[in-house]
Amino acid sequence: MIRWKATVSYDGSRYCGWQSQKRGDSVQEQIECALTRVHRQPCEIVASGRTDGKVHALGQVFHFDSEINMDGDAYFRALNALLPSDIRILKVEEVSCDFHARFHAVKKRYDYYLTNDVNNPFLQNYMGMERTVLDIECMKKCAALFEGTHDFTTFTSAKIDPRKSRVKTIYHCSVEKKDDVYHFILEGNGFLRYMVRMIVATIVECGKKQLTIDQVAAMLSAKNKHLCRYKADACGLYLVRVDY
Amino acid sequence: MIRWKATVSYDGSRYCGWQSQKRGDSVQEQIECALTRVHRQPCEIVASGRTDGKVHALGQVFHFDSEINMDGDAYFRALNALLPSDIRILKVEEVSCDFHARFHAVKKRYDYYLTNDVNNPFLQNYMGMERTVLDIECMKKCAALFEGTHDFTTFTSAKIDPRKSRVKTIYHCSVEKKDDVYHFILEGNGFLRYMVRMIVATIVECGKKQLTIDQVAAMLSAKNKHLCRYKADACGLYLVRVDY
Repeated sequence: MIRWKATVSYDGSRYCGWQSQKRGDSVQEQIECALTRVHRQPCEIVASGRTDGKVHALGQVFHFDSEINMDGDAYFRALNALLPSDIRILKVEEVSCDFHARFHAVKKRYDYYLTNDVNNPFLQNYMGMERTVLDIECMKKCAALFEGTHDFTTFTSAKIDPRKSRVKTIYHCSVEKKDDVYHFILEGNGFLRYMVRMIVATIVECGKKQLTIDQVAAMLSAKNKHLCRYKADACGLYLVRVDY
Repeated sequence: MIRWKATVSYDGSRYCGWQSQKRGDSVQEQIECALTRVHRQPCEIVASGRTDGKVHALGQVFHFDSEINMDGDAYFRALNALLPSDIRILKVEEVSCDFHARFHAVKKRYDYYLTNDVNNPFLQNYMGMERTVLDIECMKKCAALFEGTHDFTTFTSAKIDPRKSRVKTIYHCSVEKKDDVYHFILEGNGFLRYMVRMIVATIVECGKKQLTIDQVAAMLSAKNKHLCRYKADACGLYLVRVDY
């Protein structure tokens, strides 16, 4: 048995997310279906984590096992020939048999794009849309609050498993503006469900002067799952990289 | 009666083209449907010309007539509220009653994007894909051949109306390369069916050394509709601007 680590980029626009769901087509299903055709027997894959419906990936990572004699380059070509063009395999590498795409991930980077160019039809699936011009200096200060090790209970879905720790470390949280586009970068040792989208939306509220820096700091330290009612649109979110 | 000139940008990815067809949703239908709701009676629109399925527009122009008391800004807001987000109205202006979006167009610009970055899932609907690295100097020389007034019979669909002139003037035909992307610009007083896509594909063949400059020049002067078997993918084509 050989374990393979694969890196994949996808345009999430027409998918219900990474994981198989009743309500639509998933990226995982597409890849498992392609691998099943290559292996001529069912093949399951394990990703570094799920992405929500409409969320994109530049460098999602998954692993799978194989009993057949095929090298990384052959997997690369076979999978890209079988997959739809909005899912592209970037790399397939042999790894040790105990490698695990989820458990061994030590760092993840997510980017979020938000634009004031709301009448641009080409950005509708690729950036969040915001009519208001935001105060970028406020947003930068607000973003910095999230860096460090915190209990992120306020900034995650209420439906999360109560036995799971909500303490995560964010190494980097920033936002820059270029022309009409706000570009957020978040890097951390892991992210809870909806955490990036809720943090981004909170920073945006700050940029709209609907929340002060002090109020955001209080929300974070309150560890209260009912405090944050904001969640940025999925289409602006990109899983950029997973480090091991 | 007031005649209105509207400028529209659309992501053509999920449309069968500008004009209504049996096999799918068209941009024209979407706009006519929105205008019919605004006017509370059927409304027809006339565009500067059709675009094929999957082709995009940054500045397509159409006209329509109205009997109701509504200004350009009100049309802009009402139409964008009713239209799907991949079709965005950019401007609605009052024009004289004899303005005609098709007959009065004097210049059109089309851009075409082709990329060597074939494994980028985000470009699949927005650029043509080409594995081969092309000879850009050859392509530039080839592009220059098309400038001027020519009978473009070789570079159009065979199904065209035989009574219609195939003589057109191309004011500008160029290609530049930046990183992995080849960017073509074509400006002319009008373009025949498939003409831009057939010219682009011919320039690409030249860049692959499958055709020489002399062969392309001979194709053009032959005025033979059977000579060009190349047509670039629709998804890389953008109608950029129509001048009156």
